[in-house]
Amino acid sequence: MSKKLTSRAEDYSKWYNELVVKADLAENSAVRGCMVIKPYGFAIWEKMQAELDKMFKETGHQNAYFPLFVPKSLFEAEEKNAEGFAKECAIVTHYRLQNDPNKKGKLRVDPEAKLEEELIVRPTSEAIIWNTYRGWIQSYRDLPLLINQWANVVRWEMRTRLFLRTAEFLWQEGHTAHETKDEAIAETKLMNNVYATFVENFMAIPVIQGVKTESERFAGAEETFCIEALMQDGKALQAGTSHFLGQNFAKAFDVKYANKEGKQDYVWATSWGVSTRLMGALIMTHSDDNGLVLPPSLAPNQVVIVPIYKSEEDLNAITEVANGILSNLRGKNISVKFDNRTTHRPGAKFAQHELQGVPLRIAIGPKDLENGTVEIARRDTLTKQTVNLEELVETVEGLLKEIQEALFNKALDFRNTHITEVDTFEEFKDVLETKTGFISAHWDGTNETEEKIKELTKATIRCIPLDMKEVEGVCVYSGNPSKGRVLFAKAY
Amino acid sequence: MSKKLTSRAEDYSKWYNELVVKADLAENSAVRGCMVIKPYGFAIWEKMQAELDKMFKETGHQNAYFPLFVPKSLFEAEEKNAEGFAKECAIVTHYRLQNDPNKKGKLRVDPEAKLEEELIVRPTSEAIIWNTYRGWIQSYRDLPLLINQWANVVRWEMRTRLFLRTAEFLWQEGHTAHETKDEAIAETKLMNNVYATFVENFMAIPVIQGVKTESERFAGAEETFCIEALMQDGKALQAGTSHFLGQNFAKAFDVKYANKEGKQDYVWATSWGVSTRLMGALIMTHSDDNGLVLPPSLAPNQVVIVPIYKSEEDLNAITEVANGILSNLRGKNISVKFDNRTTHRPGAKFAQHELQGVPLRIAIGPKDLENGTVEIARRDTLTKQTVNLEELVETVEGLLKEIQEALFNKALDFRNTHITEVDTFEEFKDVLETKTGFISAHWDGTNETEEKIKELTKATIRCIPLDMKEVEGVCVYSGNPSKGRVLFAKAY
Repeated sequence: MSKKLTSRAEDYSKWYNELVVKADLAENSAVRGCMVIKPYGFAIWEKMQAELDKMFKETGHQNAYFPLFVPKSLFEAEEKNAEGFAKECAIVTHYRLQNDPNKKGKLRVDPEAKLEEELIVRPTSEAIIWNTYRGWIQSYRDLPLLINQWANVVRWEMRTRLFLRTAEFLWQEGHTAHETKDEAIAETKLMNNVYATFVENFMAIPVIQGVKTESERFAGAEETFCIEALMQDGKALQAGTSHFLGQNFAKAFDVKYANKEGKQDYVWATSWGVSTRLMGALIMTHSDDNGLVLPPSLAPNQVVIVPIYKSEEDLNAITEVANGILSNLRGKNISVKFDNRTTHRPGAKFAQHELQGVPLRIAIGPKDLENGTVEIARRDTLTKQTVNLEELVETVEGLLKEIQEALFNKALDFRNTHITEVDTFEEFKDVLETKTGFISAHWDGTNETEEKIKELTKATIRCIPLDMKEVEGVCVYSGNPSKGRVLFAKAY
Repeated sequence: MSKKLTSRAEDYSKWYNELVVKADLAENSAVRGCMVIKPYGFAIWEKMQAELDKMFKETGHQNAYFPLFVPKSLFEAEEKNAEGFAKECAIVTHYRLQNDPNKKGKLRVDPEAKLEEELIVRPTSEAIIWNTYRGWIQSYRDLPLLINQWANVVRWEMRTRLFLRTAEFLWQEGHTAHETKDEAIAETKLMNNVYATFVENFMAIPVIQGVKTESERFAGAEETFCIEALMQDGKALQAGTSHFLGQNFAKAFDVKYANKEGKQDYVWATSWGVSTRLMGALIMTHSDDNGLVLPPSLAPNQVVIVPIYKSEEDLNAITEVANGILSNLRGKNISVKFDNRTTHRPGAKFAQHELQGVPLRIAIGPKDLENGTVEIARRDTLTKQTVNLEELVETVEGLLKEIQEALFNKALDFRNTHITEVDTFEEFKDVLETKTGFISAHWDGTNETEEKIKELTKATIRCIPLDMKEVEGVCVYSGNPSKGRVLFAKAY
């Protein structure tokens, strides 16, 4: 914490990498592309998990756990899904080490312990789960099957960045089975909505709901719904996806049910997921050159109290006041920490809590003792105010609510001023080079145009917004007819 | 659920295997030795996790997350640990699949995508964690470091059984670092105590705390504390372990700290864990020939209400009463479900809830409506009573408490009557063949004797009890001097 962070203006990417490490959120490990999530970062992820898990259960889902490994033959069963993930998976081929006969004290893979069939470390669990569902589903009485799993998954990414793209990451994956196509589509939309509500209300990140184009769709899906957020550098980030899988997996794994008339039919499927990638979105949406800025809903400590004292007598008196505050705030379900470490000076504590994004800091010094006051500093605005002790609880409650809203509104303003409608390809390229953000433009609906634009500008279609207005227009690239504007952006 | 369970007397092992599957707790998967934890089983595991997590946090621990993979070279660093786990691990050697040139539509491991260094799927995380701690610990200010991880681990077991021994299992692993040996030993004992408290109070399973002999110790530990439980078939089950690791890992991974005088020293370590194996202990301790019996603390539904009706009019009236009960019980934090499925008859519902171990079943029929009563059935004793609606909440609260205590006391009685003191090897063998359970016997303290007894009887030393009385005696096998009685048993 000795050196200052690189500023966002100077090097946004470097700022992010430094911040993740310095704020004690995560770090790279000895394993290529795999991260260690440090206690402070994990405490934020736990808060996300708890809230999402509650929302999943409120919408009728149950948790379960499926194997880490997928036998290669199962992995191959759904062709598109297999092709989509084959290039980036870790493969277990052996099951034993032995003492290396050539190097004392070293181990080597036992060549005799080769698996008959290789095991894929799950990059996603559709294959193993649908193979299991075949045994769980016989009739309409078994439907809908609404299951979620919290798990680690592995995708052998070549370029990795903490939280945003790592070889192993943590996520949840919902996998549901339904009687009808309509019901499955309704579930797909419902869960995309749950994600949008969570990300907006808890993470204070505004999102646009939409569907993906065919080329950006999940491998094996018929339709992919998504929520798209905008980071401070003007790049988009896909924050969650919900897939309508049609009957593809049911057919690949022969999962049929008897309907009320006793007729056999394949079930309809969905899957949906969010991951530790959301940590990246959280960091990049709100934080500033001084460090992390956390919305109160997700802050491990919403308030920290720092004593400022020279004598032990002062510290004792401050401790007494602080204990009263701790008990009052905790009584209101506000998480608060008294930072009475004797190993650090107040200045160092201030710097640390600022870097770690604690929403409110309360400082208590000898003058405060005399006056019956404390000083409250807001992390988001870096403003301070002096508050009487009697009004403290109410003030803190009000400020936490205000900060949560202010962070959302600030991000929403930024997002809204970074959606630019363009009608020519020159404008399109100009926006990408100057203002960045989302570009709202007409598109002719073909893969070819999408691919060509990507090749020329690195911008992709983030989504076809659910609230897209149907208007006649001409494609910004090809000049062919278009039925509405879609959102392009460079993306994480 | 059509066929009855095999009885325990007939075939205990078969009874267990059937029960796990029929009660919807878990099942085998397509991956050798790996299980699927079904929603009902997972709901019980989630309750265990929540309570343990709370206890860990109350004792000052924080959660974090470390990589799934351990590079082979790190794995080798602590020699004993490496040897202890080398024989049974899954090894990732490649990172890509490709289209198989010989079989259309199939994939094969891309031979070009071979890893430079093999990755071990963690069988336990000491190596990767201690390699990380080197960067986290510089001075006494960084100590103690008290971290826990909830994770999946893989041990390539040859003979697997649902929950008791599976290739992949879920667990938590605590890993702590301390300034002094005494502090680390105190932590080791503290966490063994936390486990004992949890298993006794929440799982209603009595345990004996003790230390392991050298041959049964965790690979790389200097002392292993454990809690040992006794199953209904008279076999012991190790329910949790807490290891004092000395400075072994600190030395292997060069983790030093500067003490208050600025002198460098290696830190002292502990690790401790419990796993989904606890599910096996839960099932085998309390359940009976009718199915699962769950202590109220861990039951996903503590109470289930079953309506008994012929007319829709009756159902409506029963529903009104049931809704009142639901709201009253939930107000007391009692989890309760109204089983108003129209697809199943009351008899089928009774059988299902009995099989799944719901502690209390409330039945409401037309006569109950007339009398303002309900019928309550206890799962543990299979007894029924009629209760007036006004007294229902109080009765349910009382019964849940009573059941929790009764299950513990019943298991405690069984355990206590299955600890047999023997003084000759003839008696020793006789107990194993007739009564089973723990055998309390003098042992000369040598590996050789322990090994010989194991070879002759399959019984191992489960632990040297912490409350062992120091008394002079002679070893039950060798006749050599002994300082106290240790506990032998056949074990899971």
